[in-house]
Amino acid sequence: MLKAVTTVATVIGLVGLAGAALAATATTPAAPAGGADPLMEQARQHFKAIPAAIPAVKDNAVTREKIELGKMLFFEPRLSASGIFSCNSCHNLGLGGVDGLETSVGHGWQKGPRNSPTVLNAVLNVAQFWDGRAEDLKAQAKGPIQANVEMNATPEHVLGVLNSIPAYPRKFADAFPNERNPVTFDNVAKAIEAFEATLTTPAAPFDQYLEGKADALTDQQKKGLSLFMDKGCVGCHTGVNVGGHDYFPFGVVQKPGAEILPPTDKGRFAVTKTADDEYVFRSPTLRNVALTAPYFHTGKVWDLRQAVGIMGTAQLGATLSEPEIDAITAFLHSLTGQQPRVEYPMLPASTVATPKPVLR
Amino acid sequence: MLKAVTTVATVIGLVGLAGAALAATATTPAAPAGGADPLMEQARQHFKAIPAAIPAVKDNAVTREKIELGKMLFFEPRLSASGIFSCNSCHNLGLGGVDGLETSVGHGWQKGPRNSPTVLNAVLNVAQFWDGRAEDLKAQAKGPIQANVEMNATPEHVLGVLNSIPAYPRKFADAFPNERNPVTFDNVAKAIEAFEATLTTPAAPFDQYLEGKADALTDQQKKGLSLFMDKGCVGCHTGVNVGGHDYFPFGVVQKPGAEILPPTDKGRFAVTKTADDEYVFRSPTLRNVALTAPYFHTGKVWDLRQAVGIMGTAQLGATLSEPEIDAITAFLHSLTGQQPRVEYPMLPASTVATPKPVLR
Repeated sequence: MLKAVTTVATVIGLVGLAGAALAATATTPAAPAGGADPLMEQARQHFKAIPAAIPAVKDNAVTREKIELGKMLFFEPRLSASGIFSCNSCHNLGLGGVDGLETSVGHGWQKGPRNSPTVLNAVLNVAQFWDGRAEDLKAQAKGPIQANVEMNATPEHVLGVLNSIPAYPRKFADAFPNERNPVTFDNVAKAIEAFEATLTTPAAPFDQYLEGKADALTDQQKKGLSLFMDKGCVGCHTGVNVGGHDYFPFGVVQKPGAEILPPTDKGRFAVTKTADDEYVFRSPTLRNVALTAPYFHTGKVWDLRQAVGIMGTAQLGATLSEPEIDAITAFLHSLTGQQPRVEYPMLPASTVATPKPVLR
Repeated sequence: MLKAVTTVATVIGLVGLAGAALAATATTPAAPAGGADPLMEQARQHFKAIPAAIPAVKDNAVTREKIELGKMLFFEPRLSASGIFSCNSCHNLGLGGVDGLETSVGHGWQKGPRNSPTVLNAVLNVAQFWDGRAEDLKAQAKGPIQANVEMNATPEHVLGVLNSIPAYPRKFADAFPNERNPVTFDNVAKAIEAFEATLTTPAAPFDQYLEGKADALTDQQKKGLSLFMDKGCVGCHTGVNVGGHDYFPFGVVQKPGAEILPPTDKGRFAVTKTADDEYVFRSPTLRNVALTAPYFHTGKVWDLRQAVGIMGTAQLGATLSEPEIDAITAFLHSLTGQQPRVEYPMLPASTVATPKPVLR
């Protein structure tokens, strides 16, 4: 974490200077036809466009069969103890990959501890969950299935359901050929990860701009982009996902109020047990942020403009003017990409052997 | 109701006789190429195939614009007070149009009073809900939105949400052209009805059989079809939807136990306040019944074979043999049709004016 903190401190030190020298995780693409203006060149130092192809995933070949199975599992409520919640309940593909709640509601109407992060482009994050405790999406997928405030299931329940429905073992055999016993909890997670790898949102106006289309952003959005870089927002929100790539303290300059940053949730500290990691979180991707209110890990801020203002105060020590907030917010709207097109999967019928829903 | 009771009594009286003279609500189609055997001819007296075209709906032209809007609203959780439940929560298009629970779970984890009926082919039912209290799908749609154990919303909440999201008034204007104020609760219901009218499941093996494909049913399914007609099941399950067309007492010969038919739920009596309607329900469609466990209005029976046996005892006064139950169950599996193909709708983002979710 020390590296990341240092990075933020550097950013803070550079507020007001040009951001061109800051951490450039993106590689600059080959100059496209049409030439580039200085703002475009500067942006390419910090960001890169979402690739049109499905990203490769470590140790999990993204095959068509795995995607198809993973889509079924993503929408499969019978993976939960109650039979009510699927991945899509809290990562609704129709709602920007989130649920639009402060914090998610799960088994028994319990409220989860943190706001549901978007599944869109999550494959491009360095790690998963607000505190990065899952190294990838296959590790992440196992969490909510088992969390008692979410799907409240066990691996045994999940495998009991899948093995009771003949179509599933067949789909697993297709997705994981040459495995003796393909219906495993690990493979459930791998299939879900493969489907989620397809949930990228390319071709946002900002991507088009990075690719050389100078008029893909409005003048106000360009002003916002310029501010976003020059004020130092790029210190934590950079790369292909405009965030999601590293860990940073929330409230590095000035801690926001306890409603937004409650003292009881120390973020990544719970993962690393390192004092430096108190109130440290993985910076969220700002991709599709205009779709994913409410904001922050507590979900207490519903207005994107207000969230921008809070970030200025808390992270940059800067009081952004109203026109600055407007411009940055306009830029953030340019991060809304093409949403995935998904045909709703038909799930195979339960049998008499399928474990019954348990509501208590 | 007297008519319906009489019909059932007639059916009961005819148990064991050929069912050809029983209530024939289906019109016999023109004889297709290939000729028909006596069983096929008999079946055509009782049933008809699901039409390939979208059925017309009374007082609500099913336009492309209305279907598109209705699909969004069907999947729109923000119509509920909590922001969690949509129509699809309890009428999951991936699960045969039901939720697979005994009775649905809604706002605050409350259990609803009756099992969720399938939305598939519901447009072909005579009326909606187990007790037929909604005359059509547009009347039905308003119920769960407002029921406090389901979506727990008000028309004001619904219209507040829709008017706060600019894309919705535009979609309503497209769907309801020439209306001064198209964003109304009535039009919400009409759009949902228009989408639901598309949710038919044609081309089940049984439909193919009715249309002349003699080998569309297995020999066991044909035996089951024959029993289904000759034992008198067709007394309550006939027509295009194999049920769903009229009202009948549950337990006309022998009342099932209180778990399956609790004395507190008197069915249609609550609608008509007529003594004859105590424990009377609209017969459910048996279309896709193999997908829609658990069974009966209480959802207490998970095994389709067991449900068939109970129907024999309760409705026909007949103890069906195991081979008879097997054959009828096999026939019921032939009623699983082609499930709707639905692209998951992208829902427009909330604004700061959108009413917040209320969980309490």
